[in-house]
Amino acid sequence: MAEENTIFVGKKPTMNYVLAIVTQFNNAETNRIVIKARGKAISKAVDIAEITKHKFVQAIKYESIKLDTEVLEGEKGTSNVSSIEIVLAK
Amino acid sequence: MAEENTIFVGKKPTMNYVLAIVTQFNNAETNRIVIKARGKAISKAVDIAEITKHKFVQAIKYESIKLDTEVLEGEKGTSNVSSIEIVLAK
Repeated sequence: MAEENTIFVGKKPTMNYVLAIVTQFNNAETNRIVIKARGKAISKAVDIAEITKHKFVQAIKYESIKLDTEVLEGEKGTSNVSSIEIVLAK
Repeated sequence: MAEENTIFVGKKPTMNYVLAIVTQFNNAETNRIVIKARGKAISKAVDIAEITKHKFVQAIKYESIKLDTEVLEGEKGTSNVSSIEIVLAK
């Protein structure tokens, strides 16, 4: 069930993700949302978390923030990309 | 003295910052380095931390990772920018 509350940050506008998270938190059953991003999207993930926290759902806290490195398999071999996992909880 | 071990991530290449951090950790007196970045540089800060940790100074751990929002005063008024503070410690 945890996977249902995971947001993968990609190329959509920042506010699309913020509104998706706010909508989920307005569902009484949702107490915890995980935001995941890789590479350049990491900055956007931090924006999304901060905007959600400061402008929309003041009751949430950062339960954990983790950094990691993922290995991607490409045509030219493997490459490393950094990732972030931000857990928001109310 | 803490400020001496703070790295502000800007427009230089990622490896410049990594090497600056590795050099500081090779100084026996340095046990703790703070990496700070704002806006788009946040992704680069995470790359810097991950590359340092996985390729150069395996003994370090993330002591803390904090996200925040800073208010910038500009000619057209104020704007908000997200920031990250990553504390590396060995």
